[in-house]
Amino acid sequence: MRLKSLLFSLLFLVGTHGFGQQQKPNVLLIISDDQGYHDLGSFGNKDILTPHLDQLAAEGVRLTNFYVTSSACTPSRSGLLTGRYPQRNGTFELFRNNMVNYGHQYTDYEYSVSPERILGTDLREIFISEVLKEGGYTNGYIGKWDLGQLKRYLPMQQGYDKYYGFANTGIDYFTHERYGSPSMIDGNRLSIADKGTYATDLFEREALEFINGSEGKPFFLTLAFNAPHSASNLDPEIKGTVQATEEYLKMYPKSNTKRGEKQRAYKAAITQMDQSIGTILERIKEMGLEENTLVIFLSDNGGMSLADNSPLRGGKAQFFEGGIRVPCLVKWPSKLEAGQTNDAFLTSLELFPMMVAAAGLELPEAIIYDGFDMLPVLQGKTDAERTEMFWEFRGDQAARVGDWKWVQSAKGNGLFDLKQDIGEQNDLSLEKPEILEELTRKFSEWKEEMENAAPRGPFKDF
Amino acid sequence: MRLKSLLFSLLFLVGTHGFGQQQKPNVLLIISDDQGYHDLGSFGNKDILTPHLDQLAAEGVRLTNFYVTSSACTPSRSGLLTGRYPQRNGTFELFRNNMVNYGHQYTDYEYSVSPERILGTDLREIFISEVLKEGGYTNGYIGKWDLGQLKRYLPMQQGYDKYYGFANTGIDYFTHERYGSPSMIDGNRLSIADKGTYATDLFEREALEFINGSEGKPFFLTLAFNAPHSASNLDPEIKGTVQATEEYLKMYPKSNTKRGEKQRAYKAAITQMDQSIGTILERIKEMGLEENTLVIFLSDNGGMSLADNSPLRGGKAQFFEGGIRVPCLVKWPSKLEAGQTNDAFLTSLELFPMMVAAAGLELPEAIIYDGFDMLPVLQGKTDAERTEMFWEFRGDQAARVGDWKWVQSAKGNGLFDLKQDIGEQNDLSLEKPEILEELTRKFSEWKEEMENAAPRGPFKDF
Repeated sequence: MRLKSLLFSLLFLVGTHGFGQQQKPNVLLIISDDQGYHDLGSFGNKDILTPHLDQLAAEGVRLTNFYVTSSACTPSRSGLLTGRYPQRNGTFELFRNNMVNYGHQYTDYEYSVSPERILGTDLREIFISEVLKEGGYTNGYIGKWDLGQLKRYLPMQQGYDKYYGFANTGIDYFTHERYGSPSMIDGNRLSIADKGTYATDLFEREALEFINGSEGKPFFLTLAFNAPHSASNLDPEIKGTVQATEEYLKMYPKSNTKRGEKQRAYKAAITQMDQSIGTILERIKEMGLEENTLVIFLSDNGGMSLADNSPLRGGKAQFFEGGIRVPCLVKWPSKLEAGQTNDAFLTSLELFPMMVAAAGLELPEAIIYDGFDMLPVLQGKTDAERTEMFWEFRGDQAARVGDWKWVQSAKGNGLFDLKQDIGEQNDLSLEKPEILEELTRKFSEWKEEMENAAPRGPFKDF
Repeated sequence: MRLKSLLFSLLFLVGTHGFGQQQKPNVLLIISDDQGYHDLGSFGNKDILTPHLDQLAAEGVRLTNFYVTSSACTPSRSGLLTGRYPQRNGTFELFRNNMVNYGHQYTDYEYSVSPERILGTDLREIFISEVLKEGGYTNGYIGKWDLGQLKRYLPMQQGYDKYYGFANTGIDYFTHERYGSPSMIDGNRLSIADKGTYATDLFEREALEFINGSEGKPFFLTLAFNAPHSASNLDPEIKGTVQATEEYLKMYPKSNTKRGEKQRAYKAAITQMDQSIGTILERIKEMGLEENTLVIFLSDNGGMSLADNSPLRGGKAQFFEGGIRVPCLVKWPSKLEAGQTNDAFLTSLELFPMMVAAAGLELPEAIIYDGFDMLPVLQGKTDAERTEMFWEFRGDQAARVGDWKWVQSAKGNGLFDLKQDIGEQNDLSLEKPEILEELTRKFSEWKEEMENAAPRGPFKDF
């Protein structure tokens, strides 16, 4: 850690002078969990009420061609918060607790030494929060962290000044337990003080408290909802479902089917999250900060069975578009014209450089970043630099080069022309062998680069 | 790692000068796996043929009151090779692959990201090999490593110049697989070149090759047999049994019971290991190195059901004496009188300081060690400094203070007077509440010290 601090001191001397604190924008990064590509009004949904996200879209830019780095939460988030491919930063898997899925409940001791508890993202990685903190920001992390539960891995050790949330993959929305283990953390400690209160409400409360306390200093708030992820509970009736409060459930018609009721809760959870986002954005407006606040919204990966990823094929844990192309909204009134749609090929790897540049800082020089500042693209000043993107998860592989997409997976294979076939229905691998060859070759080159990259744990072998 | 190297440069300047290379003794540290306290002739066994270990005892010192730091292999070995309590170095558990024990065989990908594959002893720990290497030694590690399988954790990255062995908890003696996965490693890579050959024979071959190649430089060889640990195999007939070759099985009478046959293989595996030890000691003699070679033999923890831990109670994975008091032999002709028995209270924590002192080196100053150089005790020059020892594993706890022993575990509790009751049959906790109080208080103090120690992973929470 000392070495890391030294690295910082050397790297950031360049970046921090010459910018007045007042001009730095606030940054609000909102992440929803497993929300489908089509699960908000601004992406075409007519059934789910998302008035505040729709307003955010209307006041900013809607990105329709935007990808995350993995089809599962942990690696997607590691890519987002480090600006590096999960395969480069070493967190390309979940820090899983397999046994609970095999019908075994850990004892306290077993859980304390389980991979879910003891693993986390390599501490040599530099999180966006660390860069912004060096640049004078006050940082808050509210909600799902997902990159390690031990203290050393928690947000407050990675450049965040405040943390309230949970650090494993999913919780029960009310008890905040995962498979029976308390999981809500306040600061660096487990806390059951808020047990019983709906998680979205808590995250809203904490986000407002953080913003209220920012007082004149630029803030960076990462607000990572658990909604609409399904709950991780020991109760088989609740496990695997999405939870919402009665107030929001009432907004949707009751169903007489089990699936219908589950879908109802899914929608209600999104609407409830939407309401919290609205309340927080309203507070920012009331504080006079709206103009100079960069707001980013995205889902961490595609939706699961209750979600609607149309017109995309597949969903979470897959590399068809439904698993990795996600809804994304960006608003920054002082820099971005309202009401735009941008269909440039962009990814969550662009967010780290964009946030750093927005803060008037420079990227740490010694580190390889896989994206670029996409703000000029959103401003219409330049074309996107991105021409290719690669994914790998549990043996499934995918590449996109230009408008061509190649997928090789347990759920299906193929070469698709996204320009003509966004639903990935027509496999052109036989018709276009030379393009297939190009994509698989580029994928192999990428994979080789990842394998030769400076070793980072915990999942990378070296 | 760079910081660690720097630390070395600073620490070892003091220790290395002033000693001629020629005078430094060779060190041969032999570890058997799950061998019971009573499972060799020199500890009273009449059934198992261990002529070479008996000769080693006759030529050296037999330690009858000697403990390891845990009742399971991985933490016991982490304590031995770092000179620190497992609770201090952070490796106090097994790097387990739980799922295989729940009837699930990992796919290659699952195994590659399993805890068994990706965890290892904290790289900030300084292994005995690292200290001796700085002191001019050539180091070899042959056999069971058990402290991490990724390259970064393997012996050759921890100060060893040669490695041949396996890095997980147990293998099939012939296929060298663990639950179907190849597990023999040559250098830093998995190798199936020797598949089919009995593991003990391979370790003997590699040990001889290493010793032959030492040429004039002092060597440190850690020789960690898998015998007589039971085999980890997918075949339910073999899984959980000890394996030996026909040649050694023939030395024991056939049995018509399943348990008898298993016991026969257990004994044969020990005799086969004993023969390899004999061959290696003979080679050292032939090379004229016997006089100035420090040989240490111990079992990593108590034996399991096939073993004989008598007169001790319990065995592996328990804190009754049978789980943690192990047979230990030390021979160093130029320093230790032959044929002694030493019943001083000593532990494997004393081995690190003893080996460092034997090499004419000093312990790294900035590191807390939990033992002391026990050579003067074995020489009869001083009394043992040790008056207490503490153990903890999966919630079980134990303390020994003087001749009093306290155990609290799932398998039984009690306060025992080891001077009168080495078999821990008479619980004196009601008769001696003040002694019980003292031991539990000292245990609590120790536990607090461990919890407040500089954080080390992977199992320690911080």
